[in-house]
Amino acid sequence: MTNTGRLETFCDGVFAIAITLLVLGIRVPAANEDVGASLIAQWPTFLAYLISFVTIGIMWVNHHRLFALIDKSNPTFAYINVGFLLFVAFVPFPTELMAAQLGAGSLAGQRVAMVLYCGTFFAIAIMFNAIWLYAASGARLLRPELDLEALRVGARRFAIGPPAYLIVTLLAVVNPYVSLALVGLLAIYWMLPGSAPDTAPAP
Amino acid sequence: MTNTGRLETFCDGVFAIAITLLVLGIRVPAANEDVGASLIAQWPTFLAYLISFVTIGIMWVNHHRLFALIDKSNPTFAYINVGFLLFVAFVPFPTELMAAQLGAGSLAGQRVAMVLYCGTFFAIAIMFNAIWLYAASGARLLRPELDLEALRVGARRFAIGPPAYLIVTLLAVVNPYVSLALVGLLAIYWMLPGSAPDTAPAP
Amino acid sequence: MTNTGRLETFCDGVFAIAITLLVLGIRVPAANEDVGASLIAQWPTFLAYLISFVTIGIMWVNHHRLFALIDKSNPTFAYINVGFLLFVAFVPFPTELMAAQLGAGSLAGQRVAMVLYCGTFFAIAIMFNAIWLYAASGARLLRPELDLEALRVGARRFAIGPPAYLIVTLLAVVNPYVSLALVGLLAIYWMLPGSAPDTAPAP
Amino acid sequence: MTNTGRLETFCDGVFAIAITLLVLGIRVPAANEDVGASLIAQWPTFLAYLISFVTIGIMWVNHHRLFALIDKSNPTFAYINVGFLLFVAFVPFPTELMAAQLGAGSLAGQRVAMVLYCGTFFAIAIMFNAIWLYAASGARLLRPELDLEALRVGARRFAIGPPAYLIVTLLAVVNPYVSLALVGLLAIYWMLPGSAPDTAPAP
Repeated sequence: MTNTGRLETFCDGVFAIAITLLVLGIRVPAANEDVGASLIAQWPTFLAYLISFVTIGIMWVNHHRLFALIDKSNPTFAYINVGFLLFVAFVPFPTELMAAQLGAGSLAGQRVAMVLYCGTFFAIAIMFNAIWLYAASGARLLRPELDLEALRVGARRFAIGPPAYLIVTLLAVVNPYVSLALVGLLAIYWMLPGSAPDTAPAP
Repeated sequence: MTNTGRLETFCDGVFAIAITLLVLGIRVPAANEDVGASLIAQWPTFLAYLISFVTIGIMWVNHHRLFALIDKSNPTFAYINVGFLLFVAFVPFPTELMAAQLGAGSLAGQRVAMVLYCGTFFAIAIMFNAIWLYAASGARLLRPELDLEALRVGARRFAIGPPAYLIVTLLAVVNPYVSLALVGLLAIYWMLPGSAPDTAPAP
Repeated sequence: MTNTGRLETFCDGVFAIAITLLVLGIRVPAANEDVGASLIAQWPTFLAYLISFVTIGIMWVNHHRLFALIDKSNPTFAYINVGFLLFVAFVPFPTELMAAQLGAGSLAGQRVAMVLYCGTFFAIAIMFNAIWLYAASGARLLRPELDLEALRVGARRFAIGPPAYLIVTLLAVVNPYVSLALVGLLAIYWMLPGSAPDTAPAP
Repeated sequence: MTNTGRLETFCDGVFAIAITLLVLGIRVPAANEDVGASLIAQWPTFLAYLISFVTIGIMWVNHHRLFALIDKSNPTFAYINVGFLLFVAFVPFPTELMAAQLGAGSLAGQRVAMVLYCGTFFAIAIMFNAIWLYAASGARLLRPELDLEALRVGARRFAIGPPAYLIVTLLAVVNPYVSLALVGLLAIYWMLPGSAPDTAPAP
């Protein structure tokens, strides 16, 4: 058993790098291109940057809120977090793929790209809940003074993630643009108060 | 409410990565090129590296000074910082675009590139003030022992950022080189004492 | 003599960046390619991402466990860690090389690539033991309250790393695919309890 | 005046990223190339990776040793560190340039590349001394209990950096290979005890 300091530093590092690498997916027009037209034609790249950045940013905030409840770590918990980061660090790839397909690909290509994009967030949502369940099961790693009953209420809304992203992933087969819009809406939903278990004192 | 430790770590990570990714925008000449001539022809890339690096570096110092005044965080404050980082992490893209255009592009391309470059700093300046206003409004997140009146004096000079970068962005339509010079001058201005609210003890 | 805080921060940073750079080795199909077929043909890239990510992740966890035993640092110890990081930061290169060769290379190319890939983990395992031996020799840098006898038991299993990766490296000359499978199995082995000296209290 | 915690985190981040980005300068052979021959032909790239990694690593250790003497920071000190990082983060560019030229360039190209490579370390050495001189001047930012006389002895050997790298830079015009060897030797020299002011207690 150790404290969570270094695990948080490592997770913060991976989050910060993955979110900053997103910019490398935006193509710089060659010097002899029409810059304005080239940037406008690249609109899906900018949209993809925005949605992925905000989604990763919110996942980071919620990871941070979750760890505010936790006061110790062990190797198993660290491994679960590594599994979580496996998908967080993967996000720049489906982001760039999706942007390339939305801009110029076939409908079939857009479907594959969007399934991979939404599927990555589905996997992240599952791992997020695995982190929470491992830490909260029997209050294993939680700070002792917390009100478990209040936390369960928050966790219930928190558990919406996996089914929500599963539906969005399945919808991507039907209409990739609807799925992209829903990923954006889900990002806004996670920002609402009460969407994650919080340290609010019990009444 | 949590302390600001992990938010600062995350912001520092994004700042450090964005500032270090700038070097990837400098093209390594092929082995059979005339290296000296190639490096000289790339002078706008080096200038862009210098100005963006110093500007991001100063923004980091001022973010650091700001957070020295703040002693707690909440999810909304974290989201505002994510919005701020959205533009900080974006800087390598307009930097590379601007360098490519200054080196070989048309005047129209240089205008578009420089508007995007200066516009990014305009957005950063707005978000910077949003961070400050949210934290300082009703002294919401500030350290209790601070002299609010003294801070307001510092904040006034601090609020120069958005209009200054807006003017520089508009000027980029007229003359991109003048705007670039002004971005460099603004960087020097932000280094002057008194350009940000500081922890100096009240008299 | 200083505490280990900043050495850990630096190591965590390199680990986090190396693990996150792995995603840059996955090629985004061009907009006019058949996306599904292209991703399937790239299966070794995804497998390489998975195995390298998990292996680096586990090395990080074990580095973290090791440092939980250590309470001070000195320049020599820092240099040994820099030597360790030299190989950790190198991992993205043989990972990408191996993935490219498994996908389309000749058997000779696959052998070279896999020897370099496994050889990098061999070097990491050696440096890992060097870190441990320097810190533990005469209990030089260890926390004073630790039970050295109990640690020696853990360290014995820990010392399996170098010979195990040497065998895997040599096997790569015979059959690269068997070596890759063994690297994956070794990653699982390192996750088992007792594979590293731990802070468990002595009985 | 603030403590140095966040400045160190930021510097550590830039060091860690710059050192890890070096691996991106190593070209992965295409699937249909002769992998072994291609890697051997790339030997200057591996040598460049080794020398730059070790040099940055040692600079980090010495930065760390320096900051162990310092207990507070101010904006000016932060700006000097940003200037120092400007050159640290630049190292991947001359490293890749130098490796490309040593492998296949003309002697003229090798001279230009090596002057830029050694000149970058010259600039870093100057900034390193600027950090030290600003902090130590009038003991401005030093920990109060330090023996200033003992520190001056260490600082004297420390001040060897700028003239040493200046000579190496000038020699690069005559013979780039001799300069590269000397950069490697200097790295070893900085690892020797006593090459930086240290916290050793005064006698």
